[in-house]
Amino acid sequence: MEPILLPDRVHPDLAELAFLLGTWVGGGEGEWPGTEPFTYGEEMRFEDVGDTFLAYAQRSWSLDDGSAIHLERGFLRPAGPGRLELVLAHPIGITEVAEGTVGDGKLQVASTAVGLTSTASPVTELRRRLEVQGSVLSYELDMAMRDIPLTWHVRGRLTRS
Amino acid sequence: MEPILLPDRVHPDLAELAFLLGTWVGGGEGEWPGTEPFTYGEEMRFEDVGDTFLAYAQRSWSLDDGSAIHLERGFLRPAGPGRLELVLAHPIGITEVAEGTVGDGKLQVASTAVGLTSTASPVTELRRRLEVQGSVLSYELDMAMRDIPLTWHVRGRLTRS
Repeated sequence: MEPILLPDRVHPDLAELAFLLGTWVGGGEGEWPGTEPFTYGEEMRFEDVGDTFLAYAQRSWSLDDGSAIHLERGFLRPAGPGRLELVLAHPIGITEVAEGTVGDGKLQVASTAVGLTSTASPVTELRRRLEVQGSVLSYELDMAMRDIPLTWHVRGRLTRS
Repeated sequence: MEPILLPDRVHPDLAELAFLLGTWVGGGEGEWPGTEPFTYGEEMRFEDVGDTFLAYAQRSWSLDDGSAIHLERGFLRPAGPGRLELVLAHPIGITEVAEGTVGDGKLQVASTAVGLTSTASPVTELRRRLEVQGSVLSYELDMAMRDIPLTWHVRGRLTRS
């Protein structure tokens, strides 16, 4: 992996995203219809690779035994002043294209295309809200499936490590 | 990043994909209608993260000045005997869901869903063929865009590093 560059060194297009840079560690909690509420540990990394986008990697794990719960890998693309595009792959067989706004240490995106493999759960929509205040990153994610309308699913709170 | 496990330690579902494990370095060449033929350096990493899928990361760079050309990040999912699913994010604003076959050191997948952000090039289809013989990984990729039918685009040859 390339080293993370200091925020004052990033490409000018990334200025509005610089608040995300670095590795964040913490955890979260979630709910989904038909399952028990759950909690998890989590790491998020937003990495400058010297180009006009950020690389993003997330992993979460069980607080009981440390086993993996979820991974996300992808990219954040500035798309003009205050506008953001997100492209992600999830190992549960899902891809996510999302678009929205970024500014003042906050971002908010809604999926515009969710791709599914034949064996994936039928996710149809995702919405993400994320905010950094000081050294704390907090986020929420809503999700819809084919037979389940858009529902709050997980929220997390991480600190810069 | 988690360490790469030895092939005899991977989850049984990954047996057919174990030939990919590791980091591969080399380069390739490509063509696209309306542009000059080009060559590039490339690294591919297929990583066991202790689950029922492999994490995949690719980067390519200019042989002239080392600048980044392309990145891909995502996952390979076994989907039953001889069957493979691929989910990828590309920083050019594209997500790729692909399905196909794997076995005997070869894989072949065709996209079933390509997701695009508002500012992405209008890619409509991708097909990948990849083979490992000894310590050499070779691959080819075909691509279609909205006004350009499926066309051979790039091929590469990498060795296990």
